[in-house]
Amino acid sequence: MAVGLVGLPALHPVSGVRLSAVAAGLRKAGRRDLTLIECASGSVAAAVFTRNRFCAAPVIVAREHLSQARPRALLINSGYANAGTGAAGLDDARASCAAAAEALGARAQEVLPFSTGVIGERIPLARLLAAIPAGIAALTEAGWADAAHGIMTTDTVAKGSSRQVVIGGRTVTVTGIAKGAGMIRPDMATMLAFIGTDAVVDVPLLERCLETAVAGSFNRITVDGDTSTNDACVLIATGRAGHAAIRAADGDLASLQQAVNEVCAELAQAIVRDAEGATKFITLEVSGGASESDCLAVAYTIAHSPLVKTAFFASDPNWGRILAAIGRAPIATLNLEDVSIHLNGACVVRAGARAPEYTEAQGQAAMRQAEITVRVGLGKGRAQARVWTSDLSHDYVRINAEYRS
Amino acid sequence: MAVGLVGLPALHPVSGVRLSAVAAGLRKAGRRDLTLIECASGSVAAAVFTRNRFCAAPVIVAREHLSQARPRALLINSGYANAGTGAAGLDDARASCAAAAEALGARAQEVLPFSTGVIGERIPLARLLAAIPAGIAALTEAGWADAAHGIMTTDTVAKGSSRQVVIGGRTVTVTGIAKGAGMIRPDMATMLAFIGTDAVVDVPLLERCLETAVAGSFNRITVDGDTSTNDACVLIATGRAGHAAIRAADGDLASLQQAVNEVCAELAQAIVRDAEGATKFITLEVSGGASESDCLAVAYTIAHSPLVKTAFFASDPNWGRILAAIGRAPIATLNLEDVSIHLNGACVVRAGARAPEYTEAQGQAAMRQAEITVRVGLGKGRAQARVWTSDLSHDYVRINAEYRS
Repeated sequence: MAVGLVGLPALHPVSGVRLSAVAAGLRKAGRRDLTLIECASGSVAAAVFTRNRFCAAPVIVAREHLSQARPRALLINSGYANAGTGAAGLDDARASCAAAAEALGARAQEVLPFSTGVIGERIPLARLLAAIPAGIAALTEAGWADAAHGIMTTDTVAKGSSRQVVIGGRTVTVTGIAKGAGMIRPDMATMLAFIGTDAVVDVPLLERCLETAVAGSFNRITVDGDTSTNDACVLIATGRAGHAAIRAADGDLASLQQAVNEVCAELAQAIVRDAEGATKFITLEVSGGASESDCLAVAYTIAHSPLVKTAFFASDPNWGRILAAIGRAPIATLNLEDVSIHLNGACVVRAGARAPEYTEAQGQAAMRQAEITVRVGLGKGRAQARVWTSDLSHDYVRINAEYRS
Repeated sequence: MAVGLVGLPALHPVSGVRLSAVAAGLRKAGRRDLTLIECASGSVAAAVFTRNRFCAAPVIVAREHLSQARPRALLINSGYANAGTGAAGLDDARASCAAAAEALGARAQEVLPFSTGVIGERIPLARLLAAIPAGIAALTEAGWADAAHGIMTTDTVAKGSSRQVVIGGRTVTVTGIAKGAGMIRPDMATMLAFIGTDAVVDVPLLERCLETAVAGSFNRITVDGDTSTNDACVLIATGRAGHAAIRAADGDLASLQQAVNEVCAELAQAIVRDAEGATKFITLEVSGGASESDCLAVAYTIAHSPLVKTAFFASDPNWGRILAAIGRAPIATLNLEDVSIHLNGACVVRAGARAPEYTEAQGQAAMRQAEITVRVGLGKGRAQARVWTSDLSHDYVRINAEYRS
């Protein structure tokens, strides 16, 4: 069902990052559900986590470990979110890290845990621990595609992206993978994403780089407005590319930023393209706002409207629903007479009413596309914002009604 | 599909209110789609309207007319919302009022227009005008049930409620009808509702009475979070019951308030019970909040979560989704350890984690019911709030994907 995704692109290995995915029997027999990502000694990392107040046990432990040590390995299980599991869940996350650390010859704080799956049930810990040696044995720098498959839950396709840039005469690689198809909502690093680079860069610059990239990618997507308890995005830099360390004033930072931006945007879009039940990939571009936050409020109100989303699913140019969503957006001032709406190229609404030249046939032609851009003009100022979302289909309901059965 | 609705209850006539519904051919051949409500000379009215900034032409005109004169008639069409229709839509609404006024021997400002249906298309005005004489000829005090049918759009059942109380030794009747099944969201008089009473009461008290009743009923329901451009709720008092005029300090005001509250609550619940595709009627009771607005924020975040709504549809006690929704509610402070969740009688979450005594069988037993109460405790204070909502089913998507076809 994924809209416009034609399989995993070629993923360049990142020197110093080895990955594996093995079947621990957590989820379905034979399904790879335990993923390991090991990074070379000396690597630095930046991370952003869910802002859901009920963050999962692994999020709590990963934050804690990140504050205590540089990570040597990420341990990711699918099938169980390890959220809403109380003190026992924290114990499980810590025990997983300790076991992986021991097998790798590292300290427990050097392992970061991540989980994705059903909330409220404990991970079958014995099975997870038993699979760690096989995971370590399988680690390889060519393991990005395996890892992209290992972290999937309701995803229908594995998601990855890779870029190379030249910094200080050396080729620098940025490669990332992500999972996520439902419980997706912006503003909180909304899914699991793991990105590696061999760039030579310190932690503060790496953090700034990740925050900038996330702000324009993972924090600009929404499928259903639901925020996961487990979302995390980690960017690791191994420093193996061998160029002089990137400094804040460098043009090199811009090169790295651009590559990380592109990888994050491609991964974020892949999540929306593979959204549960999605048949459309929708870009919402709101301009003319008094502020960016006003533009985002309008974009998200449209993106979260079940009536708008079902109209997209039906390829129905029911622009009245878009207008009604704009009208209830939580912003301070809005003048009906200044609002315009375009569907792909066609002007549908001008000055708050149906554009005289608009024809239903134009709207139908736009809505029949698998990729639709809705441009909304607010006529209040110069701010703008862009959000990506999907439609609401029969399959979204089916998938989420059947998820646990 | 309506959950727990067994047809229109007996609706007591209100002395001084006559109603009719005729087929004007606006919507489908033979379907009654033009409704008239006439109130006797000397009647007073209170009204609340949508807070959507793109309010429809009839809302603009109704507000304008209400500020200029006491209403003698309400003219309601279904099939066309007359929203997003610009200046032409305003002309249509005014022309409808003028025509009805002329036929009734009233002034145009004494007629209030209401519309419900598709946004963005003009009403076939000639057909509407042509049907007005038949509508006037059919007016009768026994017409409440006809009118309840006439205002329906995607509603599957007609909705009405009626109460009688004794004030000053006289029987006072409060009877109301409502329509609404989708594009339903709280805090804005979310649908069309028309309520009549023969109580003797002045406009300020009537307005206060309506606002109080709406705050606890129509403003506490949500189906899909979408706010209509056309919502309106009108309460008319004909003064025909013949008791001494109700004063602010009276116990009689409490009697009238109670009756109006009950009629509004029954109508509001009927809208949720008949929500598009609904298979469940869900009451969300949030207590222990620092403020009522915090409790409402938590209740609406749960009520609007597509993941929670699909779990209800699936009868799946997936309480992790409820916990995750609470965790992303936009409130200032929330302590995981203080949160509890009950499904009907069963305690599912205590202190932020699965209650030790909870069994999946208990959860399944609760979720199998057609009516489910979710009680959330926040452990922060003494405020509380209650919201009614429905589930998200295949039929919601089908109905809204097919609405215009």
